[in-house]
Amino acid sequence: MKTQNKILIANRGEIAVRIIRACKELGILTVAIYSKADENSLHVKLADEAVCIGGNLSKDSYLNMSRVLSAAIATGCNAIHPGYGFLSENPKFVSMVEECQIRFIGPKASVIEKLGDKATARKIAISASIPVVEGSEGIIENAKEGLKIAKKIGYPVMIKASSGGGGKGISIVYSDQDFLSVFEKTQLEAMANFGDNQLYIEKFISNPRHIEIQILADHHGNTIHLFERDCSMQRRNQKMIEEAPSSFINDSLRKKMGQAAVKLAKTVGYTNAGTVEFLVDKEGKFYFIEMNTRIQVEHPVTEMITGVDLIKEQIKIAYDKKITLKQKDLTILGHAIECRINAENPFKNFMPTPGRIKRILLPGGLGVRIDGFIYPDYDVLPFYDSMLSKLIVFGKTRKEAIRKMRVALEQFVIEGIDTNIEYQYMIMHHPEFIKGSYDTGFIARFHSVMMEEYHEEFIK
Amino acid sequence: MKTQNKILIANRGEIAVRIIRACKELGILTVAIYSKADENSLHVKLADEAVCIGGNLSKDSYLNMSRVLSAAIATGCNAIHPGYGFLSENPKFVSMVEECQIRFIGPKASVIEKLGDKATARKIAISASIPVVEGSEGIIENAKEGLKIAKKIGYPVMIKASSGGGGKGISIVYSDQDFLSVFEKTQLEAMANFGDNQLYIEKFISNPRHIEIQILADHHGNTIHLFERDCSMQRRNQKMIEEAPSSFINDSLRKKMGQAAVKLAKTVGYTNAGTVEFLVDKEGKFYFIEMNTRIQVEHPVTEMITGVDLIKEQIKIAYDKKITLKQKDLTILGHAIECRINAENPFKNFMPTPGRIKRILLPGGLGVRIDGFIYPDYDVLPFYDSMLSKLIVFGKTRKEAIRKMRVALEQFVIEGIDTNIEYQYMIMHHPEFIKGSYDTGFIARFHSVMMEEYHEEFIK
Repeated sequence: MKTQNKILIANRGEIAVRIIRACKELGILTVAIYSKADENSLHVKLADEAVCIGGNLSKDSYLNMSRVLSAAIATGCNAIHPGYGFLSENPKFVSMVEECQIRFIGPKASVIEKLGDKATARKIAISASIPVVEGSEGIIENAKEGLKIAKKIGYPVMIKASSGGGGKGISIVYSDQDFLSVFEKTQLEAMANFGDNQLYIEKFISNPRHIEIQILADHHGNTIHLFERDCSMQRRNQKMIEEAPSSFINDSLRKKMGQAAVKLAKTVGYTNAGTVEFLVDKEGKFYFIEMNTRIQVEHPVTEMITGVDLIKEQIKIAYDKKITLKQKDLTILGHAIECRINAENPFKNFMPTPGRIKRILLPGGLGVRIDGFIYPDYDVLPFYDSMLSKLIVFGKTRKEAIRKMRVALEQFVIEGIDTNIEYQYMIMHHPEFIKGSYDTGFIARFHSVMMEEYHEEFIK
Repeated sequence: MKTQNKILIANRGEIAVRIIRACKELGILTVAIYSKADENSLHVKLADEAVCIGGNLSKDSYLNMSRVLSAAIATGCNAIHPGYGFLSENPKFVSMVEECQIRFIGPKASVIEKLGDKATARKIAISASIPVVEGSEGIIENAKEGLKIAKKIGYPVMIKASSGGGGKGISIVYSDQDFLSVFEKTQLEAMANFGDNQLYIEKFISNPRHIEIQILADHHGNTIHLFERDCSMQRRNQKMIEEAPSSFINDSLRKKMGQAAVKLAKTVGYTNAGTVEFLVDKEGKFYFIEMNTRIQVEHPVTEMITGVDLIKEQIKIAYDKKITLKQKDLTILGHAIECRINAENPFKNFMPTPGRIKRILLPGGLGVRIDGFIYPDYDVLPFYDSMLSKLIVFGKTRKEAIRKMRVALEQFVIEGIDTNIEYQYMIMHHPEFIKGSYDTGFIARFHSVMMEEYHEEFIK
């Protein structure tokens, strides 16, 4: 008899809903886990089974490895999908899953461990002849050694926590004078945030593009890339808008970066979905920064331009299926943009705005996709990420996609709490965004203008 | 200076919202019209301007030609999009629009007139060597002549009103004995419904497939087809589920039917979007039945499998743009299914269920499209069509599309009024639908089983 596959989704919010939908479409049973606060969350309602695994704080529930694993064992799951964030890139958790003979929908623990350590990842890239940003070769022993390296590279430089991620644990230094104090501050921050104070140094590239390549690799030696996503629309290293393809990349550079990403994945024995992140400078030179060993928030833009369901591919790969997609058959079908719709007030320093959602009007129609989890009378919780929905549009051209996004944002109404919908709408009308000439410094520049010019209008 | 285009949308509900979105994406201003009852309808809120044109009954508002036209003139519109239903196929209205130098987004009045008369349309098809169902050549003078023709064709035959449409004005006769009474009844019905009692006769094809070809034709001599839609899922000639492509049609038949549709359009000097409807019998022989000279409710399935925005194409054609799509470049990208979500109770003879909608949860994610107009606390009105939303899904294969539709229906919640969501969900699990072997008799057969077997469970 054929085994009935059953997957535990070790996550919440929109990505849990996204994974449940994919499982249902594949005929796979689903188990949701939830914290007490998440009792009424949509993923709990939509899964075939749901297990409460603890208290409201992430550390008591979604980050509690033994409880997550116990839930999987107790419900007879043969696989775990980690989503993004939480335990998705935790090699210890993945080892535990592997030891329990449960399939982890992602790469092996040993691969996650190597790529999770920024200095090791950098060494691997260098060994595969992939360009990296000039910097220290590995961890810096002490501040003095760091100062020497910074002098050699030339300012500005970045001091980065080896275990950092999600935009945290990064400082920029502009001169010798500031180096020592910033180094110590970053060390303390790294220890507080990641329990590890190891640091390394990189040349700071001023206002680069943040471009990442999506890859898929199966257990049969097939590795492909699905082109790039441009994630340069960031605020404090947190992505806000993503698009594919990048208007900054031509076919030749696209091919080179895609090949580099595939080579890195092969070098390290990568399996499942992953993302290789690069910085691209004004001259179109690209530098490897890190590899994310999980599905990304922004994966839908790649799905829209390629027609490939990345979550289903992840699941199939984890169940030892071969990738049937061929690199040469993949083409870019159009242009996709994603806006993250967050419960936050951009005019109050992006302060989260938890509270009760009242009525909702969603945009719709041709080329409009919503990956969300909110519903009327849902209480947005203060304990987790403020993202409520991802609004993704697809058009034949970038121009069409931008126009579609404007119309969709205009017709997206969430009553009860403040959101960043209007802020996103304004970005969609900014000449720099329209031209596609923006870089990672855009939001900071845009925001200071907004705060000056629109202060009175928007802040009551 | 370039003229700012402005379109009056002579419709309501989901199609009005659909057209407004397309106009906004094209940078065209929109004017909504509405009846008093529709004051709070979404199309009124979304358009740039809105004009109340009369009372709740369609004849006092959406069917009132001079009021619709006055609204267009008063607001300075240079085009009118009629949507479907209402005045969309009324040659008198279209003549009035033409006389006012306003662009009608559809074919010329003279073409609508020819194709709107079923007997004339049939003659045109015959002249273009397109197969038609055996029947009377034109209008039948009287019941006696009809009886003679019915005998010659062989029973069963259909008696059809020349001005009929939307499944109304059709009777089936199985023997000489019944002929005269049914003929008279149909004559009376035709007069009551369409103000015209002219009838014609056709051979009745038992449980055929209803397959229609989408065409586009510009003012520069370019005419293309965008493959077929299978609309065999009908209840009393009202479509309920549509899909594209048809699992009943192979490439060779697809090509033949497409060419026939293009030929008909060219023969009659057709412009803009149109649909040529055929019946296909068990042997794969196809017969022209009629041409709809407007956009169809089910147009999204064609958009999903071709990537072509039909409403935008309609608008561009009306503004004299050339079609840039080439027949040879059009391909079928996957499979799409549309379920019409209606405010009706299938277990109470599909009785409409107007009333206040409370909370709504919409499905979403990759390949899920919703064309709707409802929102929380909206009052579904008793005056108009009961359709609330069109749920459209796209998958690489028919199997994937069916699975996606099931998941989407499962996650589609409308509180406050009864809908046919669960009924659609059950059809998606029926072996005949899954195999794709259904015909126009499916719903009638399915429904009688449902009423017997599930009676107690569903009717409280």
